[in-house]
Amino acid sequence: MKDTQKTRERLIDAMAQLVQIKGFNSTSVNDVIQAVGIKKGTLYYYFSGKDELGLAVLERDRDEFLSFLDTNLSGTDPQKSIEHFFKAAFKKHKDTGFVGGCLWGNTALEMSDTNLVYKNVVEEVFAEWIAKVESVIRSGQQTEQIRTDRSACELAYLVVACFEGGIMMSRITKKDYPFKSCLDSIRTLLKSENIHKTADNHIRG
Amino acid sequence: MKDTQKTRERLIDAMAQLVQIKGFNSTSVNDVIQAVGIKKGTLYYYFSGKDELGLAVLERDRDEFLSFLDTNLSGTDPQKSIEHFFKAAFKKHKDTGFVGGCLWGNTALEMSDTNLVYKNVVEEVFAEWIAKVESVIRSGQQTEQIRTDRSACELAYLVVACFEGGIMMSRITKKDYPFKSCLDSIRTLLKSENIHKTADNHIRG
Repeated sequence: MKDTQKTRERLIDAMAQLVQIKGFNSTSVNDVIQAVGIKKGTLYYYFSGKDELGLAVLERDRDEFLSFLDTNLSGTDPQKSIEHFFKAAFKKHKDTGFVGGCLWGNTALEMSDTNLVYKNVVEEVFAEWIAKVESVIRSGQQTEQIRTDRSACELAYLVVACFEGGIMMSRITKKDYPFKSCLDSIRTLLKSENIHKTADNHIRG
Repeated sequence: MKDTQKTRERLIDAMAQLVQIKGFNSTSVNDVIQAVGIKKGTLYYYFSGKDELGLAVLERDRDEFLSFLDTNLSGTDPQKSIEHFFKAAFKKHKDTGFVGGCLWGNTALEMSDTNLVYKNVVEEVFAEWIAKVESVIRSGQQTEQIRTDRSACELAYLVVACFEGGIMMSRITKKDYPFKSCLDSIRTLLKSENIHKTADNHIRG
């Protein structure tokens, strides 16, 4: 990696780490140059200011997140694919001790009403995330692994909502339980085989 | 209301409105005194500073939210009680055009890792919210209206997660669909009668 490229990456890394904990609004250009150990002029050589640096963080993390989704939501068996994705996502957040949470959820709540450029990136990420989950759910409905009394689109929104709400509650409590329990529950509630089993029990009872 | 009480309330109102849109970090004492139209000294007569004023906002909104839950999650029929609560919550957020979102979700993500006092109020609100939903779900399980293959506690976490994630997505898109669809889906997925119906269809099929 060239030196200039390296400095640019270090600035993005530092901004990303600060934003994940403190948010965009509370992170200053001074925080970033202090973390990297460079002069302010060097930052302005690479970025016009905090907004452009913040956008670089969002764009890099968007690419990483969409590639994470492609890796972990793939496979020929839709149900296994969803389980694999849930497992990978849980591990990813558990590894941080639920500090920082989800950049997309954080930015959604911090910036949706105040920064249109950031809001657009966040909106794009959620739309792609939902579309990918929807596609797997649709396949699962075709193979009768996933319930069909709600559309694939509706269930995809529900899955993403559970993710965001679950991570939020684990971030507050710094405990696995909220996020893990939400993932386990939604997996159970999505299954159509589970519908039949419960009904069988009911019929037997 | 006495004049001093009135000024104190106006300060809390102004801070609450600013925080709902911009968050705590981006709201300054100057923003608040400008909004109320008073001198800085007057604010410091009532509050030691921004942190104490912010705490007063959280404490007032906590009391209002817990009372909203008591009003809208009551009733003798658990299923109707949940439907009533979902309807009231949807209306509450739709009325704002999904600007501002949920103060508790916003504060959870903005403050969980940086302000212990705020975090504690947020944690308390979520714990009480989950406990109230759990209690209604448990009643619904006893009357066989709600599925029993996941515990009342697990399902309560799921409901609250769906709320927070659903509001988040409606706040990004400024559309009803994400939140409304999440509420409709989770209501369908909670029902045990729905399990039987779907299974009946399956058996007939």
